[in-house]
Amino acid sequence: MTQRGSSFPGPLSTVLPWPFSFQPRDFSLPNSSWGSDMRRLYEHYNSQCEVETDDGEKKSFSRRLVFTRNIREQGAAFEYVVFVNKQEQKCVCVFQAGHLLEGPPGHVHGGAISTMIDTVMGTHATYLSGPVMTANLNINYRSPIPLGSTVLLTCSLDKKEGRKTFVSCQVTNTYSSKLHTEATGLFLSITMGHLLGG
Amino acid sequence: MTQRGSSFPGPLSTVLPWPFSFQPRDFSLPNSSWGSDMRRLYEHYNSQCEVETDDGEKKSFSRRLVFTRNIREQGAAFEYVVFVNKQEQKCVCVFQAGHLLEGPPGHVHGGAISTMIDTVMGTHATYLSGPVMTANLNINYRSPIPLGSTVLLTCSLDKKEGRKTFVSCQVTNTYSSKLHTEATGLFLSITMGHLLGG
Repeated sequence: MTQRGSSFPGPLSTVLPWPFSFQPRDFSLPNSSWGSDMRRLYEHYNSQCEVETDDGEKKSFSRRLVFTRNIREQGAAFEYVVFVNKQEQKCVCVFQAGHLLEGPPGHVHGGAISTMIDTVMGTHATYLSGPVMTANLNINYRSPIPLGSTVLLTCSLDKKEGRKTFVSCQVTNTYSSKLHTEATGLFLSITMGHLLGG
Repeated sequence: MTQRGSSFPGPLSTVLPWPFSFQPRDFSLPNSSWGSDMRRLYEHYNSQCEVETDDGEKKSFSRRLVFTRNIREQGAAFEYVVFVNKQEQKCVCVFQAGHLLEGPPGHVHGGAISTMIDTVMGTHATYLSGPVMTANLNINYRSPIPLGSTVLLTCSLDKKEGRKTFVSCQVTNTYSSKLHTEATGLFLSITMGHLLGG
């Protein structure tokens, strides 16, 4: 069932070891904490995905995304799904911000927003360039995000230069009519040697 | 017992409602998860604090810091204490990064680092200018931070212009001999009207 041009190969699954079963759990599947905006956008992007993905499209971030998946209570913190559009080298994330991410009263903490931006831009850069590490984040907070609301993060490639991958990201409301945050990121390609060598 | 010039008025307490008691809990007190570096630095800065603080120095962030205090397991995520030096308009935070903050294997997630930077710079800007919101964060990641290690965040005021407070922050190892991350931040003074008006 390849639909509407199949720009999205499929949501990137976030598979973590799950203590109550021998099967890993995919945190990017809908759950009862999702509001109507989150469900609607998930369905919207999911319906544009190719159903027959090859294994290469489905990535496991069993270690990398622990920070954003460390609260087990559904809906309490980071609920999100990342979709990658190969053709346009674009990446879209649907993010519902739970009550534990509060910063200013009733709104999402700037650090929680930067965490999602880093996560999604880093995922996109990894998709484009292989393993990377964040070298720079420059984030402009334009309008606070109400706690509990769903927003869209849209990432695109700016340029690649050697080991450097430059991406940018906009955080908007679900209709893309209001800009909450915009950011640029520089990611450096790494090998395990970079990490082990310090 | 005012000591050595008393540059630090005292650690900023982080007081949250605690479900198991009618007394709020101060999360910035030493606990059994703290390693030797964390304890040593806490003692170092605490010994420079005035013991007789007036009530104005002890701030409650019962709502603002929920995001960094939302994991109840001691040592699993953000363990930190913020000290403000009034005379030098400087702020120091001792931060021990727990295993749930993992990003790259064995190292702290860039989003967790930016969260601490936003939190500490925001605390410092609030201390200098009253209630503020983050307008810009520009973060350069120089060297990854090993998971479980303790680092120092040192914030200073760059300038104030009307509603704008510009601060900068360096994240170093505990001996200040290795630079892990450096950042600048712009914070805007707000009233409740800014939040309610969107």
